[in-house]
Amino acid sequence: MGNTFGHLFRITTWGESHGGGVGVVIDGCPPRLELTEADIQPELDRRRPGQSKIVTPRKEADAVQILSGTFEGRTLGTPISLVVKNEDQRSEAYTEMATKFRPSHADYTYHAKYGIRAWPGGGRTSARETIGRVAAGAVAKKLLRERWGVEVLACVTQVQDVKAAVAPETFTFEQVEANIVRCPDAAAADQMIRLIEQRRGEGDSVGGIILGVARNVPAGWGDPVFDRLEADLGKAMLSLPATKAFEIGSGFEGVHLTGRQHNDAIRNVDGRVRTVTNRSGGVVGGISNGELIHFRVAFKPTATVFHEQDTVDIHLENTTLKPRGRHDACVLPRAVPMVEAMTALVLVDHALRHEAQCGH
Amino acid sequence: MGNTFGHLFRITTWGESHGGGVGVVIDGCPPRLELTEADIQPELDRRRPGQSKIVTPRKEADAVQILSGTFEGRTLGTPISLVVKNEDQRSEAYTEMATKFRPSHADYTYHAKYGIRAWPGGGRTSARETIGRVAAGAVAKKLLRERWGVEVLACVTQVQDVKAAVAPETFTFEQVEANIVRCPDAAAADQMIRLIEQRRGEGDSVGGIILGVARNVPAGWGDPVFDRLEADLGKAMLSLPATKAFEIGSGFEGVHLTGRQHNDAIRNVDGRVRTVTNRSGGVVGGISNGELIHFRVAFKPTATVFHEQDTVDIHLENTTLKPRGRHDACVLPRAVPMVEAMTALVLVDHALRHEAQCGH
Amino acid sequence: MGNTFGHLFRITTWGESHGGGVGVVIDGCPPRLELTEADIQPELDRRRPGQSKIVTPRKEADAVQILSGTFEGRTLGTPISLVVKNEDQRSEAYTEMATKFRPSHADYTYHAKYGIRAWPGGGRTSARETIGRVAAGAVAKKLLRERWGVEVLACVTQVQDVKAAVAPETFTFEQVEANIVRCPDAAAADQMIRLIEQRRGEGDSVGGIILGVARNVPAGWGDPVFDRLEADLGKAMLSLPATKAFEIGSGFEGVHLTGRQHNDAIRNVDGRVRTVTNRSGGVVGGISNGELIHFRVAFKPTATVFHEQDTVDIHLENTTLKPRGRHDACVLPRAVPMVEAMTALVLVDHALRHEAQCGH
Amino acid sequence: MGNTFGHLFRITTWGESHGGGVGVVIDGCPPRLELTEADIQPELDRRRPGQSKIVTPRKEADAVQILSGTFEGRTLGTPISLVVKNEDQRSEAYTEMATKFRPSHADYTYHAKYGIRAWPGGGRTSARETIGRVAAGAVAKKLLRERWGVEVLACVTQVQDVKAAVAPETFTFEQVEANIVRCPDAAAADQMIRLIEQRRGEGDSVGGIILGVARNVPAGWGDPVFDRLEADLGKAMLSLPATKAFEIGSGFEGVHLTGRQHNDAIRNVDGRVRTVTNRSGGVVGGISNGELIHFRVAFKPTATVFHEQDTVDIHLENTTLKPRGRHDACVLPRAVPMVEAMTALVLVDHALRHEAQCGH
Repeated sequence: MGNTFGHLFRITTWGESHGGGVGVVIDGCPPRLELTEADIQPELDRRRPGQSKIVTPRKEADAVQILSGTFEGRTLGTPISLVVKNEDQRSEAYTEMATKFRPSHADYTYHAKYGIRAWPGGGRTSARETIGRVAAGAVAKKLLRERWGVEVLACVTQVQDVKAAVAPETFTFEQVEANIVRCPDAAAADQMIRLIEQRRGEGDSVGGIILGVARNVPAGWGDPVFDRLEADLGKAMLSLPATKAFEIGSGFEGVHLTGRQHNDAIRNVDGRVRTVTNRSGGVVGGISNGELIHFRVAFKPTATVFHEQDTVDIHLENTTLKPRGRHDACVLPRAVPMVEAMTALVLVDHALRHEAQCGH
Repeated sequence: MGNTFGHLFRITTWGESHGGGVGVVIDGCPPRLELTEADIQPELDRRRPGQSKIVTPRKEADAVQILSGTFEGRTLGTPISLVVKNEDQRSEAYTEMATKFRPSHADYTYHAKYGIRAWPGGGRTSARETIGRVAAGAVAKKLLRERWGVEVLACVTQVQDVKAAVAPETFTFEQVEANIVRCPDAAAADQMIRLIEQRRGEGDSVGGIILGVARNVPAGWGDPVFDRLEADLGKAMLSLPATKAFEIGSGFEGVHLTGRQHNDAIRNVDGRVRTVTNRSGGVVGGISNGELIHFRVAFKPTATVFHEQDTVDIHLENTTLKPRGRHDACVLPRAVPMVEAMTALVLVDHALRHEAQCGH
Repeated sequence: MGNTFGHLFRITTWGESHGGGVGVVIDGCPPRLELTEADIQPELDRRRPGQSKIVTPRKEADAVQILSGTFEGRTLGTPISLVVKNEDQRSEAYTEMATKFRPSHADYTYHAKYGIRAWPGGGRTSARETIGRVAAGAVAKKLLRERWGVEVLACVTQVQDVKAAVAPETFTFEQVEANIVRCPDAAAADQMIRLIEQRRGEGDSVGGIILGVARNVPAGWGDPVFDRLEADLGKAMLSLPATKAFEIGSGFEGVHLTGRQHNDAIRNVDGRVRTVTNRSGGVVGGISNGELIHFRVAFKPTATVFHEQDTVDIHLENTTLKPRGRHDACVLPRAVPMVEAMTALVLVDHALRHEAQCGH
Repeated sequence: MGNTFGHLFRITTWGESHGGGVGVVIDGCPPRLELTEADIQPELDRRRPGQSKIVTPRKEADAVQILSGTFEGRTLGTPISLVVKNEDQRSEAYTEMATKFRPSHADYTYHAKYGIRAWPGGGRTSARETIGRVAAGAVAKKLLRERWGVEVLACVTQVQDVKAAVAPETFTFEQVEANIVRCPDAAAADQMIRLIEQRRGEGDSVGGIILGVARNVPAGWGDPVFDRLEADLGKAMLSLPATKAFEIGSGFEGVHLTGRQHNDAIRNVDGRVRTVTNRSGGVVGGISNGELIHFRVAFKPTATVFHEQDTVDIHLENTTLKPRGRHDACVLPRAVPMVEAMTALVLVDHALRHEAQCGH
């Protein structure tokens, strides 16, 4: 269970690393949106292995195919089925994984839950699962942009201890894509790239922080109580592989302030209700207030490191495991489009929910 | 929308601050669980205003009544309707709220979304909304304890800059309840209480951090992909009023480590699969691994401060607002049972989901 | 489980016959709809026991109270909690029910499912459960009428073998309410009333057929595949107590025709797409076509008859049971508002779904 | 929306007649069930065009491929993606459909709802959509059979006015498959086949009735109130193309009986609670009682008839349409596996729900 996300713009992903492919079904997309593979492929290319020297060198084209839901280049209102075939399946590289649980991977937990596990390439635990999300997110992003003028964007702001200076209000897609680590602070980006290469050379890995923003979200999206916008964004981010933390607006830092310091004063600016500061992160009481939505997501260092580690085998005997093969030493550059995709999926769902309940 | 939480153990809360009452309907509770008001009231008493000198002095008994779903002291398997009547409704204290938006409260966002707003006491945005959650959580906690031996517990670990030393593995309910700030570190608790009183004296407020744990959760609960256990816990916490951040296991700190440092080695300990460290926080790939589940939640300082603040009125004219009345200078002591309730609701839902899909 | 109906206009009912009360929570109602108890009570009065000589003589006022979700007479967009207190609980009248399963009642199936059963008054199996539906349906009917000009109406067309002549296109609410059996054919109504009184005098009971219609539904409501409008209407009707069959448009009779005879020719009538006949019943492929929606629902004769019947007790020993007390000899007059309520709930949910996906 | 069915064993279908293919994603299937294409293909072959002289002569192999969710021939507990490629797409045969609405088809309603329509082959309104249901139903049937010993079966009992004599308790799969109309009454089957051929020769079509049964369902499956077993079965059947009516147990005929005549007396038979008659159809109060579940579904005559019919074009001008091409003159033989599939999907979902809530 648990492979469906969203209520009105609802996606269901499927696929293991080494099965026939991976994909997603989108149900609820409004009709008559112009949509072809060319709208989706660029996002998959940002997520793709082998795109640069600092990500896993696997060669996968990840070419998306639209199997249903469009006609003559426009959406029908019926389910959109997107499929990416699996390639480059060197399962022989992974044979030790068949009998040993990789530390801090989900091998043991899948085993404990299901009593069976598709070990080649990690099966469903593989990051290939996110292909469906990114593909669906590309549709959501297009819808947000065309219908509401909403822009969703993310970037890397920290790799291990290297921190970038990024202005959430103003950084651009071009700045993000200007370097292979997807950090708009060029100087920090250079350091990050060097650090990732160094760690990879050591057979080790690093994690870091991604900043996500949504611009031009109108006031009124989101629902109070359980489906607050920040709660749904938090869930969306924490559903991405390797994430350990989420904060919106002032986040953990906000606890150091008093209420007087923390509150965002409200002003009428040119006829529009604005806040003077934005510690709320664009969401108050679960509902957008028209300000920039900004949040940060922590990714742990990649669990695959090329050193011998203590573990147990499937008979629960103590043993050691030294992974071989290819893997990201830092997942962040490829995770940027994932963060954008999940953000867009949350927002488009709430946009439709808002119009259903309050759009009259 | 958005007032329902959970899939198999599903709750729907309702109620405004100054309406007829607040309550919750629980659908999906297994039958034959012993349940009376006495199982629920103690948790509401932990959440109640007026329980100590550091919380809001409003006098509300918050006496719960079971209107359906039990017979002769046991659950029927039918919906359990729990109601708490509203009392102490001095709406005259709030009249300025009728025409002005309180900064960093949800007044403006409700106005923008719905075009109408129950301003007395904050209406649905009032923390009274959490009564239904805490009441339902008491049922979930009892079920977890009796059926699976799972213990859910939370405590305050930080108030503004005052940090406590708490061992997630071993702190007890008795230690939590030993002081009015609900911090098991007695020395830190004293400082916290003094700080809260000081800020209140200044007409100001503070926030802080709550630690939540779940003990004895068996390996295998949770679902991969979207409904990961950590994602659902994150959503649950971020759906609580005033929360801004969530982290599980190593959280934001984990990004400073390399993969070699961060990975939790696995060992067979007395026939059971254990991890040597617990940076995962008890969840790997969305599924519990049998270790302690531990996470932290940041609460911003209370938005109600008794100083003049810039805002706009409902005609969008610039104005100022100086709140009167009574309010928590620090929401954390009363938020502890809320964190426990939401944790229990997530866990019991996943427990039932696990049994449905894999319990054979 | 299973106590929630609808997706965007979602209701959750609760309550047993002899508990503290019965009620419903409505989540997703649009804001700013004028709503007071006076909009709801008349529908409950149509459902109420004791309203005429042919229904059960129990005396229950069934006075509804709005506990949340409105402010100054208008809906807030937050959950609307409606409660009706239980009265007239003569549980001593039912003591034999504690130990014996009434034939064709749900006593045994509840026992088999839950291992516990609130036997007084039938507990959750009591028709009192439908109070929540009728109350929520009153809100849905008002919304349909005010926002889309849609009229929902039902009437009795058959009691046992007494059939009425009713024109689905033209019968009126006043005609329905003109007699106590709620049949707009006055002559048939007389016969029906006499038949019901006769059967009641015999300690027996009768069933019959209710016709439901929805007028002015625009083309385009409903969803293809699983959530077809006719499928959701069918589910809604078959969820009512004592129903055994549902047909829409030509229904079972339609199988006697060939395709040439059955097809509804399409014509442009005054600029609007109309069908010449309406064997489709206003729905094609799951989506409304702008014609009258009309369907029929079969209700079995009331299971409570005042004669000795074979059954088993809770120890599974063979025994006999002769019910005492009061009961409808024919449920149909009171079921008319239930059919209307469920119809309205289906339609308003699909109206909002349609606007969410296609309303641009 | 509306392309998902079920809660715990949840399927999402996708695909248009002339797109890249059709398929289904199953989420929630328990792990470790043996499953290969060979378990699914036979059901698709029963649904396939061209299987006999009385169904549409289109040649489609409808070969199913499992793209995910299994490993080494067993289910993983992850989503099972099943795909069937589209073939034989002679869209030139349908060009008139591009501009004219076929009477009693969903052409106009899709147009009204979505403002766009995949006209080749009927797009999403094509019966090809049911491939995903039948494929998923094959998995559900296997699970029901292996885990609970439940048998699901359906057969044709009426074609236009030709009625068969079928004993719901005892007819067998072999009898159903013994003739091409799937009616276990051999003599009636002959008449039905002749009638279908005659109507087809006339360019006309016929409808009829399918009987569905489920055997060995234990007492206790189903949920009271909205998700009653009969309500979910009714919805499932009325979601199939061309259905107009559903009845369970005594159905519409039951209204002719009094309560004394209609009630099913209960007896202890060899230590098991049984009913002497089965007018309930195996379900009381929404919950199975351990007796045979039996119901009937009415299918209207196929809307495609090869005669000139009045209609309007997409500019809403009056015109006529005379379909060409190939089509079933009677959909019933191919609908039998669809009825079985939907029955199995309802039952397996309720089986898992029952175990989640009450399986302790």
